[in-house]
Amino acid sequence: MSILVVGSVAFDDVTSPSGSVKNILGGAATYFALAASYFTKVRVVAVVGEDFGPEQEQTLHRHGIDTRGLERAKGKTFRWGGHYLDNLDQAKTDFTELNVFEQFQPRIPPEYLDSQFLFLGNIHPNLQVAVRLELDNVRLTGGDTMNYWIQRTPRELAETLRLVNVLLINDSEAKMLAGDKSLPRAARKVLAMGPQALVIKHGEYGATIFFREGAFGIGSHPFRAPALPIEEVKDPTGAGDSFAGGFIGYIASQGQLTREVLKRALFYGGVMGSFAVERFGTERLQSLGHEEIEARFKVFRELTHLE
Amino acid sequence: MSILVVGSVAFDDVTSPSGSVKNILGGAATYFALAASYFTKVRVVAVVGEDFGPEQEQTLHRHGIDTRGLERAKGKTFRWGGHYLDNLDQAKTDFTELNVFEQFQPRIPPEYLDSQFLFLGNIHPNLQVAVRLELDNVRLTGGDTMNYWIQRTPRELAETLRLVNVLLINDSEAKMLAGDKSLPRAARKVLAMGPQALVIKHGEYGATIFFREGAFGIGSHPFRAPALPIEEVKDPTGAGDSFAGGFIGYIASQGQLTREVLKRALFYGGVMGSFAVERFGTERLQSLGHEEIEARFKVFRELTHLE
Repeated sequence: MSILVVGSVAFDDVTSPSGSVKNILGGAATYFALAASYFTKVRVVAVVGEDFGPEQEQTLHRHGIDTRGLERAKGKTFRWGGHYLDNLDQAKTDFTELNVFEQFQPRIPPEYLDSQFLFLGNIHPNLQVAVRLELDNVRLTGGDTMNYWIQRTPRELAETLRLVNVLLINDSEAKMLAGDKSLPRAARKVLAMGPQALVIKHGEYGATIFFREGAFGIGSHPFRAPALPIEEVKDPTGAGDSFAGGFIGYIASQGQLTREVLKRALFYGGVMGSFAVERFGTERLQSLGHEEIEARFKVFRELTHLE
Repeated sequence: MSILVVGSVAFDDVTSPSGSVKNILGGAATYFALAASYFTKVRVVAVVGEDFGPEQEQTLHRHGIDTRGLERAKGKTFRWGGHYLDNLDQAKTDFTELNVFEQFQPRIPPEYLDSQFLFLGNIHPNLQVAVRLELDNVRLTGGDTMNYWIQRTPRELAETLRLVNVLLINDSEAKMLAGDKSLPRAARKVLAMGPQALVIKHGEYGATIFFREGAFGIGSHPFRAPALPIEEVKDPTGAGDSFAGGFIGYIASQGQLTREVLKRALFYGGVMGSFAVERFGTERLQSLGHEEIEARFKVFRELTHLE
């Protein structure tokens, strides 16, 4: 079943210990869409500028991604530059040029209105809410946010949290959102804000999914999927968005919303995140095969499975 | 089969967000011995001062721990004080009084010489080497070290690493020892220094065991055991030593040195570490039952197992 993703499409400059690249295709919606495209059809709602050409659009089309929701505005596409020289876990931002993204008002094409799966990328909570409320057939909404919105728009974000079924954030965002340094306690507090499930991403240590009592099945036991230890992380940009793409993509491909599907989805999230960081930008996500994805899923599974 | 552990016995003052305690029984050898005592017989080689009384010794005896190697020296027992107010992951040391530990020369009672399992706690590498070389029947040696020895006694530590079968350290120690910020690459470099297996402890994210090609079985795939998300960590002191006690204790209880045993041992390490932090000092480790340990093992296992 199709997933609608709303979020940023960007051009990135990235420097890491493995090298430096300029003007490569990036943005949360791009990483999400490419990762999810290996599991199901993806529809994108985003804005790009006049510098976004047929080459970039073809990259999306080659993966069957529906770009009818890709708005072209006057001006330049969102640009971001960052480096990971000291710390592969967290980017240092060199510059952010919002450009056409600054005035982004998501417009959902009529053909997208029957979407049953929705991913609200990291944009202003008011825009996330507006998109969600426009869709009447959604069975599962995943959402992302960041420290910026947690600190500056807490009331607006509270509304997003009431509409999101699964929130995907990282450790520090979860702790900040809950105002609690204990991760499991923070998880419980975030779940009380609305979501039925909360995925907390731990970078190279994998991710944990916490459930509200009875959501998607019985009980409230958390579940953890590991990340594969990758010897050379070339570019961590987009790892979290690729994780989300693998996670929601797998769920949409299964149709059933059970604990077991969500647990497997957590593994597929880790799989897609681990591929994303192996090359700069979306290069690795553009060139995957289903056999590779299944092989890595098996490696991840064996990484923690006792006989 | 019996494990011989050599290391520190101490009195600790600890402050955490959950409260404050003074003069409680601590030290790496104590945590290790108590954790391992749930799996097998443990023999301790350590030094204490005149302030170490029958009460403390009875705590060890109640767990069947052999204290014939506990030397009593003139003066006071090693004392350490620390707090975890800002960060539960890492202690801030308030004071360290080495006292009788400063002149510690491990003496192995003749009754201990047939020990088949050995754990070299975090002491001067020269002492670790001396203990290992005195024992002729050892089938598996586990070892610990810390940043202090990595930086100050690299040549002496290199000799320890050649004699240790399984090294247990944390992320930052592994990276420092290898001089490499990539954890899997650091693991490979550390394994090239001698150990057949390397356990890297990730705190609340669990631990990963890396194998040298062919050691303890076929291949070199790493394996990861999760840690249980604990809502309230009261006192992280001794978590790593308790992990080591559960890990080596389980291995010694099985007799066979196979991959599968080492993988299960990694889970039991996490189980014992997770119990240790639930109360101040060794309180929780003193009051466990086998049913609780097995129940938590099951929870850990289900935390990452797909159907």
